[in-house]
Amino acid sequence: MDVNAERSVFYISDGTALTAEVLGHAVLSQFPLTTQTLTLPFVQTVQRAQAVKAQINAICQQTGVRPLVFISIVTPEIREIILQSDAFCQDIVQSLVAPLQQELGIAPAPVANRTHGLTASNLGKYDARIAAIDYTLAHDDGISLRGLEDAQLILLGVSRCGKTPTSLYLAMQFGIRAANYPFIADDMDNLRLPAALKPFHNKLFGLSIDPERLSAIRQERAENSRYASLRQCRMEVGEVEALFRTHQIRYLNSTNFSVEEIATKILDIMGLARRMF
Amino acid sequence: MDVNAERSVFYISDGTALTAEVLGHAVLSQFPLTTQTLTLPFVQTVQRAQAVKAQINAICQQTGVRPLVFISIVTPEIREIILQSDAFCQDIVQSLVAPLQQELGIAPAPVANRTHGLTASNLGKYDARIAAIDYTLAHDDGISLRGLEDAQLILLGVSRCGKTPTSLYLAMQFGIRAANYPFIADDMDNLRLPAALKPFHNKLFGLSIDPERLSAIRQERAENSRYASLRQCRMEVGEVEALFRTHQIRYLNSTNFSVEEIATKILDIMGLARRMF
Repeated sequence: MDVNAERSVFYISDGTALTAEVLGHAVLSQFPLTTQTLTLPFVQTVQRAQAVKAQINAICQQTGVRPLVFISIVTPEIREIILQSDAFCQDIVQSLVAPLQQELGIAPAPVANRTHGLTASNLGKYDARIAAIDYTLAHDDGISLRGLEDAQLILLGVSRCGKTPTSLYLAMQFGIRAANYPFIADDMDNLRLPAALKPFHNKLFGLSIDPERLSAIRQERAENSRYASLRQCRMEVGEVEALFRTHQIRYLNSTNFSVEEIATKILDIMGLARRMF
Repeated sequence: MDVNAERSVFYISDGTALTAEVLGHAVLSQFPLTTQTLTLPFVQTVQRAQAVKAQINAICQQTGVRPLVFISIVTPEIREIILQSDAFCQDIVQSLVAPLQQELGIAPAPVANRTHGLTASNLGKYDARIAAIDYTLAHDDGISLRGLEDAQLILLGVSRCGKTPTSLYLAMQFGIRAANYPFIADDMDNLRLPAALKPFHNKLFGLSIDPERLSAIRQERAENSRYASLRQCRMEVGEVEALFRTHQIRYLNSTNFSVEEIATKILDIMGLARRMF
């Protein structure tokens, strides 16, 4: 088989298909393979499932190779239709449910859409998450230093080091109330930790970044400016890292990490709970 | 076995453990079971793995019941240590990798952290995602009507119907540039679609909400106000839904859906691509 051939991949779910996408992506990442992917969420009726099966079979016919399907459908009748298509199907949830059933000695009581759904029981958690998003937006980029006693985390760092995306991700994914505060060019001559932040030392966490990466990011925003110059970036990063050390503020270099990685590392280091949704 | 007993659950990964959490949660949701969960990310060394194994074994001893472990660790040596603990372990990725290896006829080339990691190859996608977040924040709540030609989506709706969380989720998860625009109380006497939005009809999408739910949400923000009154909510929702119908703007009722569900439904209806990260 030609290992450079492209494979068609389907992520099919009766819900959002987010779990199928994430796991399928994790599994496929293990292989040196190029893929053409299609995500089909909300496949909840027999009619829709038949149409999806036809779509899969058509691709199989066109390419001569059976597509790879990652499926997450709870209703057996609907699932069966997809499993009959000309594809290599793997049910991402069922493959783990059967062994667990044996371990627990409890029969599963499958309900569709429970993973990312809204139910009476999780509504409280959900509202807390929306409240966290509101809080984080209201305390983004130092726009407000009031109500910091309600923050679970206060991120610090130079402009464009990743404070806002990380704060938003923490709020959206984990319900964390994350404020963030920037150190800007004007602060650098006499860089200090603002008095308003000092009482909250245990909530402070710093983000740093390689000056070269910072410069590249800033060039996108303000090409050939002093703000984006490598010299300015080196100076700012140097000053801010020195401040972190002086004040014994824990910090991470975000350069080679995605938002997910930075966020989960911060939670891990700070010992903050990862609220599941 | 007492089905009401609580089980200890561990999500263990050499990376962020986000995939293990999401999938483990999806699997456990299928069972009527209460769980005490602990997420342990970045388990990357033999030393750390031994400590985790000890932690699992201690819980097993204390509770008399072996914990449930969902594991996602690529390095065999590290994974083996955890698999030797007194737990019911399920490797969420490996359980799908082996069958796929057979199907593809390619050996896996496992690399840790690839799922949520930042690599040279995905840096472009990652920057696009950050750019989408910037765009979405800059076009939140009608603060700017400039640059709407760059929007992939413009969400409309009354205050507190979910526009901002949905827009942010679309930006963060899918790299979608989503603007949003509110219809406020003052608009209601003579509700019109703003002229600035008319050229972008194909990007418009409405969110509606049950007045009772809207009222409850608004009570949190402004208790016993006219803004939060059921009468006001009914009126606003009625006017805005009428506007959606008049202008043939597709809309969804967000009431019983989570942010993930609303977001993925919108993408599905609008035919927007779900960019995978």
